[in-house]
Amino acid sequence: MRINSRHYRTIWLADDGWSVHVIDQTKLPFRFEIARLETMEDAARAIRTMVVRGAPLIGATAAYGLCLALRRDPSDASLIKATQHLAATRPTAVNLRWALAEMDRTVRPLPPSERAAAAYAKAAALCDADVETCRRIGLNGLDILRGFAERKQGGPVNILTHCNAGWLACVDWGTATAPIYMAHDAGLPVHVWVDETRPRNQGASLTAYELGAHGVPHTLIVDNAGGHLMQRGQVDLCIVGTDRVTARGDVANKIGTYLKALAAHDTGVPFYVALPHSTIDWSLDNGMAIPIEERGPEEVTRMTGRDATGAITAVDIAAPGSLAANPAFDVTPARLVTSFITERGVCAATPEGLLSLYPERTDAAA
Amino acid sequence: MRINSRHYRTIWLADDGWSVHVIDQTKLPFRFEIARLETMEDAARAIRTMVVRGAPLIGATAAYGLCLALRRDPSDASLIKATQHLAATRPTAVNLRWALAEMDRTVRPLPPSERAAAAYAKAAALCDADVETCRRIGLNGLDILRGFAERKQGGPVNILTHCNAGWLACVDWGTATAPIYMAHDAGLPVHVWVDETRPRNQGASLTAYELGAHGVPHTLIVDNAGGHLMQRGQVDLCIVGTDRVTARGDVANKIGTYLKALAAHDTGVPFYVALPHSTIDWSLDNGMAIPIEERGPEEVTRMTGRDATGAITAVDIAAPGSLAANPAFDVTPARLVTSFITERGVCAATPEGLLSLYPERTDAAA
Repeated sequence: MRINSRHYRTIWLADDGWSVHVIDQTKLPFRFEIARLETMEDAARAIRTMVVRGAPLIGATAAYGLCLALRRDPSDASLIKATQHLAATRPTAVNLRWALAEMDRTVRPLPPSERAAAAYAKAAALCDADVETCRRIGLNGLDILRGFAERKQGGPVNILTHCNAGWLACVDWGTATAPIYMAHDAGLPVHVWVDETRPRNQGASLTAYELGAHGVPHTLIVDNAGGHLMQRGQVDLCIVGTDRVTARGDVANKIGTYLKALAAHDTGVPFYVALPHSTIDWSLDNGMAIPIEERGPEEVTRMTGRDATGAITAVDIAAPGSLAANPAFDVTPARLVTSFITERGVCAATPEGLLSLYPERTDAAA
Repeated sequence: MRINSRHYRTIWLADDGWSVHVIDQTKLPFRFEIARLETMEDAARAIRTMVVRGAPLIGATAAYGLCLALRRDPSDASLIKATQHLAATRPTAVNLRWALAEMDRTVRPLPPSERAAAAYAKAAALCDADVETCRRIGLNGLDILRGFAERKQGGPVNILTHCNAGWLACVDWGTATAPIYMAHDAGLPVHVWVDETRPRNQGASLTAYELGAHGVPHTLIVDNAGGHLMQRGQVDLCIVGTDRVTARGDVANKIGTYLKALAAHDTGVPFYVALPHSTIDWSLDNGMAIPIEERGPEEVTRMTGRDATGAITAVDIAAPGSLAANPAFDVTPARLVTSFITERGVCAATPEGLLSLYPERTDAAA
């Protein structure tokens, strides 16, 4: 997408042909900085510290992390060690393991001398495929938004989203945001309620930033406010992304998603989840089995922002001495999801719905 | 309650016998400062800028604000003007208007020369009555917590609360926290999940502070986390306060309360609302008719905390240029409330339940 009239992806190969550039998302929205990854450990650290985040982008970064490892040492031992190390960076998003499995399938049969080049080609292909996948999610979601726009008869379609499932979470376009960008570009009046998304504020710092950069009308709200807005008829639909969808349709996503899904269900607001096929975990049925990452308490008790002098400053915001807990994701039961929007179409959040779009997975899911 | 081993109320008459001291809650949790109110406008500003907040304490401060007005000018015109001015400071909490009506009933029949003294006596009586009311809420809630403690067989009773309905929101004891303090003092093992409560963070800055000062085990969480904890069986019950309860039992409280009530309902966690009689608005049935305060967007986009040098600093946390909306309360439908805990006992969140405790209000509610 565009930043200051220039088109960016979130991850790309540097001009040297081997190191990897990513947008440093810990610096947004106040500074647009590009970080350079030179080693597998650089990539692992970028994922762990959330320089990059978002399920599809985590997968893409892990793929390039494997390239960086194989460039230094293409042995079986190196391949296994790097894969294990990268897979352990974050537990919840299944795209991470999906991308590493795709990479492994490509490079493991090859002689070591050919592995690095093949890995780079495969990582680039995975990134290109992610862009195309998100574009198709956007087209499928656009049909849904056209329906809402017709019913609103010229009034803006009010969409609530949680966290950042935008292009910054993917390689380009985003999952939840792709339909929004396409609707906006097509001249449909859309307005987005952006959940702040504590504790890391990905809504306030990333989603608001990218919607603003693209000119999409939006309003920031605290995570507490969405239910009230839905009660008062100020939300037409919700669209969120996801870090893992089980075979029966349970949805792991950023902590707080479950609360918005409950409010949508209680108030009759449709609740859509946008995802690429790589986010489906066919090995799990019950969403309660998805591992939920616990992150550090300082993400809750400390906040970073820009002070009056323009400096980026961290401030403690909690009562000194109080403990904090920080579960990073929650699970929304399939029964609260209106539909999934994927690159293959729109389906019910049921085992049958998912299999109707991905029939080749029948055996794996059984 | 105790701060550094000394007992405080949140509001008291200064030694001069006429000016009013309050704890400046905008400075907590980092500084414990006492503000002095000398005029009616001081009191109105303290309410508006949330130097004092919490439905019962807003009522008590308004009562003393009227004293300060009548001390300068005890005329009918002054009484009417001050009452209107104080009533307009904040729209949602009904205790404000209740306290002003109580004051008016006391002073209006008197000759002007007697009004100021009578007002001070009445304001002091309202404060004492609020303390006793909260103490009784605590005793009634303690019975409920004893039941949970028996079922937990020695394990801690995990209580989730939202915002601050603690002693800082009242004159002493608190509403939602009174049963918690009494349980802790009685040796029952309690642990409190404290919702941060964006945008003003009353949970992180006030509830965590007062629980910590009293030695009650607690853990701070972001507002997004409570649903997840309830899904995982880590919350035994919720107790919140309220700014206005309608005759049929709908509950206005700090924005985000509705989301927690939905999660409690979805997961079978009992959801209690603690309130004094002064919070019941017998003139309203449908909670959707309660006026919801819209506060400034800077409460969402800016955060105040303590930086590394120890200075209290405000930082901007949102993408520059993004708009923000800031509804301060939401309405939880009565169907999501397990029971009310009042100074007269525990009742169902129904018209019949409320009338069973307050039969003298039968006519007013009809």
